[in-house]
Amino acid sequence: AQMSLEQGYEARREFDARYRLLLRTVRDPVVFVSVNEGRIKDLNEPAAALLGSTREDLVGSSFAAEFRDRRKDEFVESLVNTAISENTSDFNVQTKRNRQRVIITPNVFRAAGERVLICRLDTESTGSGHLDELG
Amino acid sequence: AQMSLEQGYEARREFDARYRLLLRTVRDPVVFVSVNEGRIKDLNEPAAALLGSTREDLVGSSFAAEFRDRRKDEFVESLVNTAISENTSDFNVQTKRNRQRVIITPNVFRAAGERVLICRLDTESTGSGHLDELG
Repeated sequence: AQMSLEQGYEARREFDARYRLLLRTVRDPVVFVSVNEGRIKDLNEPAAALLGSTREDLVGSSFAAEFRDRRKDEFVESLVNTAISENTSDFNVQTKRNRQRVIITPNVFRAAGERVLICRLDTESTGSGHLDELG
Repeated sequence: AQMSLEQGYEARREFDARYRLLLRTVRDPVVFVSVNEGRIKDLNEPAAALLGSTREDLVGSSFAAEFRDRRKDEFVESLVNTAISENTSDFNVQTKRNRQRVIITPNVFRAAGERVLICRLDTESTGSGHLDELG
């Protein structure tokens, strides 16, 4: 069974539209990071603002480089370990550009054959007032 | 040019994984609503909690029915009008099950040939501490 390339693209575009609009709609700062490369694949405006830069400048750059005292390899590895571990311990970091204390909540998934981290970044202020953590 | 059905499904699964994990990661309550049917297509746990029910019970049900004094047709129409209007006015409602005051921020997009609303629901508490509204 075959479907045309056009149908394939159409399906991708629709899922992509839903994903992109969701990412733009939420106010929680969210960053997608390639596990292999340690680079930022995508992020929303609140995340860019928290890191002290713009989406345009941050997409494609090293995620670890945005935080103080973090080496690239061990940083991404630690995030993956936190994502797959059963006890959800806080992952505390400090941003390099504006010295903001941030708690990262990472999850890992597989997309297009590579592992990708989705990281929610919480400051004390973004964290307040929200409902309790999801199970 | 053709791609196999399997490749097409694979592409959809990957976009779907990214979308679903993002929806599960964020703490902003978010609801997707079919414009034609007025029914909830998808929502996250914070949205279900805010509406006073569960994801399982809410998916497929009328979105308007979750709010006080709202008729189904005009409710969805008002959300679409707010989404496409240039002045972003607040859309204030009150939930039916637990009388919670909520501000809805709607956006409209097209997916699989139908128009879909993505609605962020903010209470006073979920709204506090967040960065300013995106432009």
